[in-house]
Amino acid sequence: MDSLTLQLQHYRQRSYQHIVQKMANLALDAFIVTELPIIRWLTGFSGSSARLLITREKVWLFTDFRYQEQVRHEVTLAETVIVAEGFIAELLSGNYPCGTTIALQAEHITWQEANRLRDKVFHAQQVMPIEGFFNEFRIIKQAVELDYMQRAAALSEAALEAVLPMISPNVTELDIAAELSYQQKKRGASGDSFSPIVASGARAAMPHATPTNAHFVQGELILLDFGCMYEGYASDQTRTVALGKPSKQASTIYNIVRKAQQLGLERAQCGMKARKLDEVVRRFITKHGYGEQFGHALGHGIGLEVHEEPRISSRSETILQEMMLFTIEPGIYLPNCCGVRIEDTVVMGTQGAMPLQQFSKELIVL
Amino acid sequence: MDSLTLQLQHYRQRSYQHIVQKMANLALDAFIVTELPIIRWLTGFSGSSARLLITREKVWLFTDFRYQEQVRHEVTLAETVIVAEGFIAELLSGNYPCGTTIALQAEHITWQEANRLRDKVFHAQQVMPIEGFFNEFRIIKQAVELDYMQRAAALSEAALEAVLPMISPNVTELDIAAELSYQQKKRGASGDSFSPIVASGARAAMPHATPTNAHFVQGELILLDFGCMYEGYASDQTRTVALGKPSKQASTIYNIVRKAQQLGLERAQCGMKARKLDEVVRRFITKHGYGEQFGHALGHGIGLEVHEEPRISSRSETILQEMMLFTIEPGIYLPNCCGVRIEDTVVMGTQGAMPLQQFSKELIVL
Repeated sequence: MDSLTLQLQHYRQRSYQHIVQKMANLALDAFIVTELPIIRWLTGFSGSSARLLITREKVWLFTDFRYQEQVRHEVTLAETVIVAEGFIAELLSGNYPCGTTIALQAEHITWQEANRLRDKVFHAQQVMPIEGFFNEFRIIKQAVELDYMQRAAALSEAALEAVLPMISPNVTELDIAAELSYQQKKRGASGDSFSPIVASGARAAMPHATPTNAHFVQGELILLDFGCMYEGYASDQTRTVALGKPSKQASTIYNIVRKAQQLGLERAQCGMKARKLDEVVRRFITKHGYGEQFGHALGHGIGLEVHEEPRISSRSETILQEMMLFTIEPGIYLPNCCGVRIEDTVVMGTQGAMPLQQFSKELIVL
Repeated sequence: MDSLTLQLQHYRQRSYQHIVQKMANLALDAFIVTELPIIRWLTGFSGSSARLLITREKVWLFTDFRYQEQVRHEVTLAETVIVAEGFIAELLSGNYPCGTTIALQAEHITWQEANRLRDKVFHAQQVMPIEGFFNEFRIIKQAVELDYMQRAAALSEAALEAVLPMISPNVTELDIAAELSYQQKKRGASGDSFSPIVASGARAAMPHATPTNAHFVQGELILLDFGCMYEGYASDQTRTVALGKPSKQASTIYNIVRKAQQLGLERAQCGMKARKLDEVVRRFITKHGYGEQFGHALGHGIGLEVHEEPRISSRSETILQEMMLFTIEPGIYLPNCCGVRIEDTVVMGTQGAMPLQQFSKELIVL
């Protein structure tokens, strides 16, 4: 067993202890976890179908026969149960003492499943909707998690390096999006952390544009926002490049976003409220006359999922702390013209924010 | 406007009328749709965040500012609302008369959102959990949907053709999985319909194996199960090939699965219960001594999602009808040895089942 695996096992064991402590504080006897990233985080299981039952004494993982082999290689901490007739039927066997207060993840369970657990397995009084229970454990990363996230970021950067020279008027946004996914996977990623955004010209004014079969055009800015998954952890990065000399207006907004992003990197510090960081950057962009064209939050936490706590928005009261990881990604979007976004993922340290990405943020003209 | 787009618009208008009729029959005044594939099916919207409010008079689509541009190009039938403060807050504006009985999709809404709608917007008596409401509309496909699914299937087949020659002892399962995704996208797919399964040797005995960084080994069977999305519709196909001459046992189970799959294709007919088709194929495999090693259902419906109604399982009472689309995919899995699965997607016609795939099912030895 390598040291990383060992660290992970200790981390999982410790997390379980913290969870049990919190359950005791909230007088919860059992917790049914329906959120796959949390199941992976706590047990290592990477399959697409599972339920986790956490009690103060024991953890059970329920999955189906398709994963019979896989659980043997992956799962620690939990005892695995292969269910034939479904989770509800399995719970009805009476083999899993749950006590009198059972928490369900209100934001990660369907109304259907909550109703069935309440009506068929437990009583209405026993079942409690709980929200955000695991956020406090996820929001501060461990060294081993940072390690995975650095590797994920490095895979994405290597993919970007390989793909940029392929951009020309002979290829389309979809071609380059396919290349980014492919190059990340060829380097060891298990997949995209989200569907890559490759948007050229006026389409880059849609912050979440879907790549089209449009060819790139000389003089346009091209926005590339993409990331991958590595060992269950996400990367996220955006660069905007130009194909040939861009217009004056495009250069102008590029430079503002470039400076705004740098400002975000420099001003982030432990002890600061997230909304303060959003405010600093937003004020800079507003001062240059583009406040209205920066219509989204400055950033978002990242880890097991590409969007998680903390939100870096104008309303986020979260205090930035050491080993939080989040994105800093200001943008300016001019409808029917162009769009620029520049994004790094940073880890908070005592000396400030450190970007996981090293790729140049000077305007690259292809 | 091309004829396909026009057909789609008529189809959507007709679907809306059927939905309104069914709502009237069930005494529902409004229906809140939270299932993205259904939102796309009914309105054309392909974004990743939306709610649909269907009343007997009107349809509203709620999304956020990221999709402001996209909705203009995509959405028909519904009036679009860009929400700033979230769906719940928007409903509280009072601009959307919902009547007294509001249906929610119990299996596609979180417990959290159902609770909030009940507590903040409506009353407990007004909100009804409804399951499977749209299944009857989805289960029979229209000509325009079949057209998209044929194109999706053709993209996948072209990708397979391009990728098979790349298999050698010098590459890994992950390499080939990445190639399949890439080649599908390069040909026009918007993405995978599920993460490709590429499993060699003993790993193919896990029906849902995740590709690994293991190199292919001479003499092993390699199972490839993959598909893509095209205009919101899915393809799904499995082939098993050999790298060099396979063992006698591997050849034996290949031939049984090959014949079993052919039997499924030949025996499917309109008016037959789905479980009967499962039974015919299962009995054939059992007769050859491998019934225990065929541990999953014979197939599943496919369309907006890669798994939908009808299930082709030993318990499915669904009667096969014209223009149903589903997979026929028997398999035999020998733990610690090898696995074979062969899968086509078929469309039911009056003369029986027609596979969308043409790729050879004779054992290909690379």
